[in-house]
Amino acid sequence: MLIDGKRFRTIWPAAGGAVEIIDQTRLPHAVAIARLESLEAVVRAIADMQVRGAPLIGVTAAWGLALAMRADPGDGALAEASRQLKASRPTAVNLAWAVDRVVSVLIHLLPADREAVARAEAAAIAEEDVVACRAIGEHGADLIAAIGARKGGEAVNVLTHCNAGWLATVDWGTALAPIYVAQARGIDVHVWVDETRPRNQGAALTAFELGQQGVAHTVIADNAGGHLMQHGRVDLVLTGADRITRTGDAANKIGTYLKALAAADNGVPFHVAAPASTLDWSLTDGVAQIPIEERGGEEVTHVAGALADGSMARVLVSAPGSPAANFAFDVTPARLITGLITERGVCAATEAGLLGLFSER
Amino acid sequence: MLIDGKRFRTIWPAAGGAVEIIDQTRLPHAVAIARLESLEAVVRAIADMQVRGAPLIGVTAAWGLALAMRADPGDGALAEASRQLKASRPTAVNLAWAVDRVVSVLIHLLPADREAVARAEAAAIAEEDVVACRAIGEHGADLIAAIGARKGGEAVNVLTHCNAGWLATVDWGTALAPIYVAQARGIDVHVWVDETRPRNQGAALTAFELGQQGVAHTVIADNAGGHLMQHGRVDLVLTGADRITRTGDAANKIGTYLKALAAADNGVPFHVAAPASTLDWSLTDGVAQIPIEERGGEEVTHVAGALADGSMARVLVSAPGSPAANFAFDVTPARLITGLITERGVCAATEAGLLGLFSER
Repeated sequence: MLIDGKRFRTIWPAAGGAVEIIDQTRLPHAVAIARLESLEAVVRAIADMQVRGAPLIGVTAAWGLALAMRADPGDGALAEASRQLKASRPTAVNLAWAVDRVVSVLIHLLPADREAVARAEAAAIAEEDVVACRAIGEHGADLIAAIGARKGGEAVNVLTHCNAGWLATVDWGTALAPIYVAQARGIDVHVWVDETRPRNQGAALTAFELGQQGVAHTVIADNAGGHLMQHGRVDLVLTGADRITRTGDAANKIGTYLKALAAADNGVPFHVAAPASTLDWSLTDGVAQIPIEERGGEEVTHVAGALADGSMARVLVSAPGSPAANFAFDVTPARLITGLITERGVCAATEAGLLGLFSER
Repeated sequence: MLIDGKRFRTIWPAAGGAVEIIDQTRLPHAVAIARLESLEAVVRAIADMQVRGAPLIGVTAAWGLALAMRADPGDGALAEASRQLKASRPTAVNLAWAVDRVVSVLIHLLPADREAVARAEAAAIAEEDVVACRAIGEHGADLIAAIGARKGGEAVNVLTHCNAGWLATVDWGTALAPIYVAQARGIDVHVWVDETRPRNQGAALTAFELGQQGVAHTVIADNAGGHLMQHGRVDLVLTGADRITRTGDAANKIGTYLKALAAADNGVPFHVAAPASTLDWSLTDGVAQIPIEERGGEEVTHVAGALADGSMARVLVSAPGSPAANFAFDVTPARLITGLITERGVCAATEAGLLGLFSER
């Protein structure tokens, strides 16, 4: 998608065997490219959220294995790289999915062949993600188009939480892909952007993406969505997911569950958009089984942003000395989800619904 | 209550006919006293939220009338002061209630007597607020004690949103008064403090209050409450209110409704604490009838806090140029409220429940 009118992806292979990423901790105030040349750099980029978003984390981890194999293509290094990458973030299943996929190919190869094959596999995962996201966009745009038709062409108001746009994937995004496709189809769309505390990925990344793409949007506090729904100002909620159980429960950025409750209370459709790599067929109870990452409390007590002169700073907003807890995700039970938007189409958030699209499972 | 071990109220009469307040826009980083010497200063202090919290706004407005009468005790000045004070914040009913109460007394007096009587009336409203808050604390502490007994003395986890502590009143607070009384009774209480975007009154003021009083607490993003309730880590939700209809609907800080939904979904009791001056007996449908203040978008796009060197700064967190909307309150329907805690006791959030306590209505 576009930054300053120029096409970008979030990650791409660079000369000399390295991989380059947009350093998302610098957005929206600076568009900085970071070069990752080692497994350690990849693990750090994932843990520190220079790359984030379940699909992008998966692709980045695949590149991490390629970089690990460049340094040491032996079995021990492969196992250790797999372990480190999987531990870098605990909630998104795409990470483990991508690592397992690449390892299952490499393990049968001679060490000398592993780096090249890992690079090819990482590139393949990236391309598949682009295709899947584009397909999610088409299926989701049909939902937006139907609401637009019902409103007689009046703008469709979509509320989204966190960033599940192209910056969370390789390109297009998951929850935002339907908006970009709808825009391309000429449908009038306005997006309510949850700022998404504590890391403000909505205000910083989603608003940035939508602005760069020319999509009408308004940033709101995470607290505001219920009020907007009570007053008929939200037509559809679209979010991404970090892990979806076979029964349709969806882990996503902390606070998603609260929006799902408000949507259900006000009869607003609530859809979760994610590729197949986000599905965890081994789990049946999201609230009980999905591990929820806890991050440092200073992400809650302090807020980073740009001073008036453009330089970056971090301010303390809490009472000095007060402790904080920082849960990164919550789980929205399937009963609150109107539908799941996957690359194969839209289905009910139930085991039967998912098996209808993924009958091979 | 205590700041640095010294007893404070939020507002008090000062020498020379002025009134002094704790400037709450400076908390938690500085304890600054502001001196208000005119109606204009009072209107500005309310609009800029140097004082905030429905009960405290009411008391401050009463002092504003006294200052207005000092400058010009005529009928025209009285009407104009009443108009300006009521327009300074639209949602809290205590403001209009206090202004109407003082005006109804002054209007029958000779101008020469008005300033002195207005001062006495403002002082009386303040004292009554202290007594009411203390009574709310006793009634609410009974609820906490019952939960504590059921948990065998294990800490009772209370979640609160925004600041409805002593800083929102003259002393004691509304939603926090039960916690202070429970603490005094030796009950083990831990408070989950919603940071309360966009103005962070939870992180800045509630955490400050609780810390100064020695109450165990943890600051969380507003997004986290649902997750905590899903995992059994919240025993009770206590919030204040800015206006309560005769049918029990409660307007409170934006985001309260989302916590009420999560509480209902998880079987967690949700109580709203407020004095009688917060009751608006003229309204029957909170969502449709209570005016919701919209404030400037820059309160969402920018965050103020302390830099590492202790100086204050404001950082831009949103994508530059993205617009923001800033709804200050939402309305929690009575069906989601377990009970209302008033100075006369606890009642159901229904017309019958309220009339049971306030039979004179």
